[in-house]
Amino acid sequence: MQRPFLFAASILVCAPLAAHAQLRDTKVVTLDGAKNIVAAAEAEAKKNNWGMAFAVVDMSGGLILFHKGDGARASNGDFAVAKARTAARFQRPTKALDSLVASGRIQFLAADALPIEGGEPITVDGQVIGAVGVSGGTSAQDAQVARAGIAALRTKND
Amino acid sequence: MQRPFLFAASILVCAPLAAHAQLRDTKVVTLDGAKNIVAAAEAEAKKNNWGMAFAVVDMSGGLILFHKGDGARASNGDFAVAKARTAARFQRPTKALDSLVASGRIQFLAADALPIEGGEPITVDGQVIGAVGVSGGTSAQDAQVARAGIAALRTKND
Amino acid sequence: MQRPFLFAASILVCAPLAAHAQLRDTKVVTLDGAKNIVAAAEAEAKKNNWGMAFAVVDMSGGLILFHKGDGARASNGDFAVAKARTAARFQRPTKALDSLVASGRIQFLAADALPIEGGEPITVDGQVIGAVGVSGGTSAQDAQVARAGIAALRTKND
Amino acid sequence: MQRPFLFAASILVCAPLAAHAQLRDTKVVTLDGAKNIVAAAEAEAKKNNWGMAFAVVDMSGGLILFHKGDGARASNGDFAVAKARTAARFQRPTKALDSLVASGRIQFLAADALPIEGGEPITVDGQVIGAVGVSGGTSAQDAQVARAGIAALRTKND
Repeated sequence: MQRPFLFAASILVCAPLAAHAQLRDTKVVTLDGAKNIVAAAEAEAKKNNWGMAFAVVDMSGGLILFHKGDGARASNGDFAVAKARTAARFQRPTKALDSLVASGRIQFLAADALPIEGGEPITVDGQVIGAVGVSGGTSAQDAQVARAGIAALRTKND
Repeated sequence: MQRPFLFAASILVCAPLAAHAQLRDTKVVTLDGAKNIVAAAEAEAKKNNWGMAFAVVDMSGGLILFHKGDGARASNGDFAVAKARTAARFQRPTKALDSLVASGRIQFLAADALPIEGGEPITVDGQVIGAVGVSGGTSAQDAQVARAGIAALRTKND
Repeated sequence: MQRPFLFAASILVCAPLAAHAQLRDTKVVTLDGAKNIVAAAEAEAKKNNWGMAFAVVDMSGGLILFHKGDGARASNGDFAVAKARTAARFQRPTKALDSLVASGRIQFLAADALPIEGGEPITVDGQVIGAVGVSGGTSAQDAQVARAGIAALRTKND
Repeated sequence: MQRPFLFAASILVCAPLAAHAQLRDTKVVTLDGAKNIVAAAEAEAKKNNWGMAFAVVDMSGGLILFHKGDGARASNGDFAVAKARTAARFQRPTKALDSLVASGRIQFLAADALPIEGGEPITVDGQVIGAVGVSGGTSAQDAQVARAGIAALRTKND
């Protein structure tokens, strides 16, 4: 049976564009914003004594900030970047792709993506403007830490 | 059990070649042809309010035209090009490879191909001369939009 | 004078950043904007009977639109994309890198860039938000056509 | 005439190894050490109002920390990482390779290296244990900022 590539609860609500608009507005996380995100993620990791690597990327997956904790493996560095890039370019948590592959849609293994939980999109005003990737714990712990980081940005942004 | 690499209903009917012919005739989609294809595909996408990316390639997978709609993700751009390239180089709808992998022939995940529905070959006079790749909806929607594009070329070609 | 792109939710354009701002505003060329650019570039090329390839990319070098004219070579397709990507990522006309290498700074040949004239940044409100790359003529002709394309966006933007 | 591959003023003084020693001691910059380095580099850049990207890598070129300032271009991010990697793997300032190419030894353009000033090795007890790469200003400014960063580590280490 073929599984449709459906993701539930898409929260993307694009602002309406004027007909034939030449440009559209978007936002980018500043370095200070990325530092806040990772400081909160690092605090969450430290609280749990998890050695982790952290990456913040823009909407294209371009690296803004990367920190590799002393307890993190070389592979954690690779994973943090790849998860962040995947979440940004697919505009969804990497858990969505992780679950898709787990449910049998293995064709996505051929894509340029790391379908493993722990990458979380940064959504502002209904638009994905970047992502955070974490690696070092279980993939659920990685996602928890990534979300703790993003929550810090949201708080500051409110 | 090994599954034979068979595709049903091949419609390729090669024109007879003179014995030891040195050259053979083929066709290439012009930029105007590609624009027609994508205009029709974009209309089909817009009618359904789907944010998509579209690619038209030649028989080798070389890019002729690419449009990334405003609602499309970065990954949709990658997928549209990869699906078109796969359909052109394998000379069949990417759904064939998609189904093949789904049926257990996972060895094709090692190939330089994206075995996901949404790439459709452009067939003229029984010869695959290029392909269209679409991404942004479900894979079935992507294929529907790609075929709507190709239909515009066929109409114009008749 | 037309201003087709005022958005309800539009905040500020290039406003000074508050100390420790978490986010900053930027713009992206829409597909319609990219089509306008390339239509003007294609008109300039056609007027001169030059067979060319055209690419429009975002600020990271991600492809938004690509057209390969019938008279363009396969290498022109590669060059158009590479020049656009270079102009976007270095935030300057590729002629700057071209001249730098010509003047003896050959170390830039080791960079991931195509230091050949014909890539022009798209600058809006003093910020580089993307680029256009053209290939098919002399590099000076390529740059002329790229600028003709960008001028069309600017006219609409005024 | 063959140019000898000489670098002046090598300061590497390896600690004596016991005959046939199986293991040797080394050091790695911690994440806190890397943060100190980049905080000092960022301060030096800010003082001069230079928009820059910064990378700290280990002795193999593996990324430990990366910050891309808001005024830095995408290419600055690429260059900072590449310069740091080059300085670490060649165990010398990238200016040495830069000068080598400038003096005619262009064969080094074929290597997996970025021979442009602005990458500085981190040397502890006569051993190169990592490197810092900076990009965003002139290459001499980049090197100045990288050295300002490393000086902070040295101070703290004394």
